[in-house]
Amino acid sequence: MKIGIIGAGDVGGTLGKRWRQKGHEIMFGVRNLQSPKVQKLVQMDQNFKVGDISEAAAFGEVIVLAIPWTSVEETILNSGNLSGKILIDPTNPLTPDLKGLALHDTSVAEKIAKLANSTRVVKAFNAIGARTLDNSVFDSQRADLFICGDDRHAKEVVEELANDIGFDVVDIGPLVNARKLEQLALLWIELAFKQQMGPNIAFKLLKRKDDF
Amino acid sequence: MKIGIIGAGDVGGTLGKRWRQKGHEIMFGVRNLQSPKVQKLVQMDQNFKVGDISEAAAFGEVIVLAIPWTSVEETILNSGNLSGKILIDPTNPLTPDLKGLALHDTSVAEKIAKLANSTRVVKAFNAIGARTLDNSVFDSQRADLFICGDDRHAKEVVEELANDIGFDVVDIGPLVNARKLEQLALLWIELAFKQQMGPNIAFKLLKRKDDF
Repeated sequence: MKIGIIGAGDVGGTLGKRWRQKGHEIMFGVRNLQSPKVQKLVQMDQNFKVGDISEAAAFGEVIVLAIPWTSVEETILNSGNLSGKILIDPTNPLTPDLKGLALHDTSVAEKIAKLANSTRVVKAFNAIGARTLDNSVFDSQRADLFICGDDRHAKEVVEELANDIGFDVVDIGPLVNARKLEQLALLWIELAFKQQMGPNIAFKLLKRKDDF
Repeated sequence: MKIGIIGAGDVGGTLGKRWRQKGHEIMFGVRNLQSPKVQKLVQMDQNFKVGDISEAAAFGEVIVLAIPWTSVEETILNSGNLSGKILIDPTNPLTPDLKGLALHDTSVAEKIAKLANSTRVVKAFNAIGARTLDNSVFDSQRADLFICGDDRHAKEVVEELANDIGFDVVDIGPLVNARKLEQLALLWIELAFKQQMGPNIAFKLLKRKDDF
């Protein structure tokens, strides 16, 4: 697939690298094409394309908003026509102290859906560390990727892209449940950093048949 | 240990049964000693003790508040002297439609700590189903029990009690993090009921060494 990744930080860079390894076409959309992060990515793989935000948005059938949540509004406004595109939201509306969420009774994902006037927003990759995006396997187990969204087809595409890079997907329902995934991210951050477990942790949903 | 369980519903009844199997002494504290639920428990195991709320609270070194969160205040007021006792809070402040939490910027666990003037409150058993309390094993894996609290010794006791009945424990830090565990319960409820995965699901935190 053609994937436009807005942002070249840990999340965007790692997803781009993994998807390239699986044969997808990647264009990063960034404000500054000369930044060290962008240069490092292009040196890593000369097949990476780089453009400004509107170019990457035009390029991708799927667009990943791998940016701080505070940049979402400006990015959507600069993205041009997003109609029909699948928008993946891996952001979290963290307060500056990382202890809480700055949004109540909504989520970044729902805000994106409104700003872009799109039903094809999928919340994904927000309650997981970049280390796990790079390597989904814990001993013999794959980490779970929790996603939600209102469009079934958009979620199927994201599930395939997640499977491509080694994740099992747990669909937690409609986009309104992004509120729960943003809360789950808070728990991940608490455990990784405040409780000092480090970034090599990931959530898994255990399931069994109702037969014991 | 001597464990007082306030409430004889699915959570309290199942915990009592499992801990009895491991040799702990259990007294249920209930409003109505003749209720069908209570009679069923006593018929299941004649070693179960039953009393009113104050008797069970006096009996237990550890007290489990296995009641609706709306009954917490009345229960604490009826529990007599709780000083030195470990209070386990498995409740969730659900809105009547089960879609959200009725408390903001606090948690039931923090309210209990204030009402009981206690530092020994431990949030536990709230983001897990009663089926999993009855059987913690999913294929070959043990479900995780997420706990938090301000008193290290109290958490160690709860961890031992959880290990006794087959759980691995993830300590997520101080009692203020009960807010995060109450949010995690919302996610469990969403998946089990709204998304119709059923009650045989449980969260696991995958971990690995930082050496890949």
